[in-house]
Amino acid sequence: MQTSPLLESLMEALRCLPGVGPKSAQRMAFHMLQRDRSGGMRLAQALTRAMSEIGHCEDCRTFTEQDVCTICSNSRRKENGQICVVESPADIHAIEQTGQFSGRYFVLMGHLSPLDGIGPQDIGLDRLEERLGQESLTEVILATNPTVEGEATANYIAEMCNAHGVLASRIAHGVPVGGELEMVDGTTLSHSLAGRNPVRF
Amino acid sequence: MQTSPLLESLMEALRCLPGVGPKSAQRMAFHMLQRDRSGGMRLAQALTRAMSEIGHCEDCRTFTEQDVCTICSNSRRKENGQICVVESPADIHAIEQTGQFSGRYFVLMGHLSPLDGIGPQDIGLDRLEERLGQESLTEVILATNPTVEGEATANYIAEMCNAHGVLASRIAHGVPVGGELEMVDGTTLSHSLAGRNPVRF
Ligand SMILES: [Zn+2]
Ligand SMILES: [Zn+2]
Repeated sequence: MQTSPLLESLMEALRCLPGVGPKSAQRMAFHMLQRDRSGGMRLAQALTRAMSEIGHCEDCRTFTEQDVCTICSNSRRKENGQICVVESPADIHAIEQTGQFSGRYFVLMGHLSPLDGIGPQDIGLDRLEERLGQESLTEVILATNPTVEGEATANYIAEMCNAHGVLASRIAHGVPVGGELEMVDGTTLSHSLAGRNPVRF
Repeated sequence: MQTSPLLESLMEALRCLPGVGPKSAQRMAFHMLQRDRSGGMRLAQALTRAMSEIGHCEDCRTFTEQDVCTICSNSRRKENGQICVVESPADIHAIEQTGQFSGRYFVLMGHLSPLDGIGPQDIGLDRLEERLGQESLTEVILATNPTVEGEATANYIAEMCNAHGVLASRIAHGVPVGGELEMVDGTTLSHSLAGRNPVRF
């Protein structure tokens, strides 16, 4: 906007958000200025604190402003003895929402990708190996993404677990619940067939 | 995220942005934390300054941190003698991009809406009338939206201009350039027919 350098820099700054182009940046800026200045101020404060104070959990590598995150320092979750390995903090959120897991996590913040120069240390596997040696774990659940890199990463960690005598398991792949069979891709369907379970009466 | 109260409040605060639900808020927060902390800090600073310093131009009511905006204080634009009346600051942006107008603007920040209790003073028409009396204007171009409220507002202002002996004009409505005739709605097509121009050779 030729009428306001501050407005122009706000619209420019909003474009650091993923999926926000010039049009949405403009709409967002006008919305806050016209209808929600207090929301805009709250956002500014939340951003400042989050960007400067949030680091990574020493135990699981997820985002947290504490040294050790709330999940890792929860003693009941420690007693559980299970660690679920995921690629990103968003995956923790998804798994927590199922209410089916009460152990702890380990967040790779990515996956092995030799072509991009991302090796075991870059995804924190030195720290995971340390934990495999120190803690008395009952199971490591490999919940990396069902992609080529995710599978390769899962296999690598499974071997690490095996070397430390810790059971490793891989989450099941198959037809999504509620989906239509004809809409499912071939690879998923193959996994689904290979992983079939006997029907019990 | 159970792992970080700060992250939770960031995701909550991002939802003040129009069109941002829980999923996109999460994606935005993770994106900034993981890949663009400096972008997040810049956004925080731009927000703080914009929300606290941007007010309205004394002459045209658009958003600006100055008393009078850059367009209104431009002497060449003053000499032009035309004022284009629009509903929102975003409309200024759209018209500026055509490069076809070199006068000044007047931003209503809405339109007349008696049912919602929005009268002439709420959209700054007292200030516009003051300007009609004080300045030597050659034309007021009514570029309110082609809606019922926009038309009513344009008519109201046209009468005001008439009372002050200032020419009022309404932007043309018609078939959008590059559009297909069969895709255009009936009202637009009626406007387009009624406003037809002789072809000159
Ligand atoms: Zn942790
Ligand atoms: Zn102005």
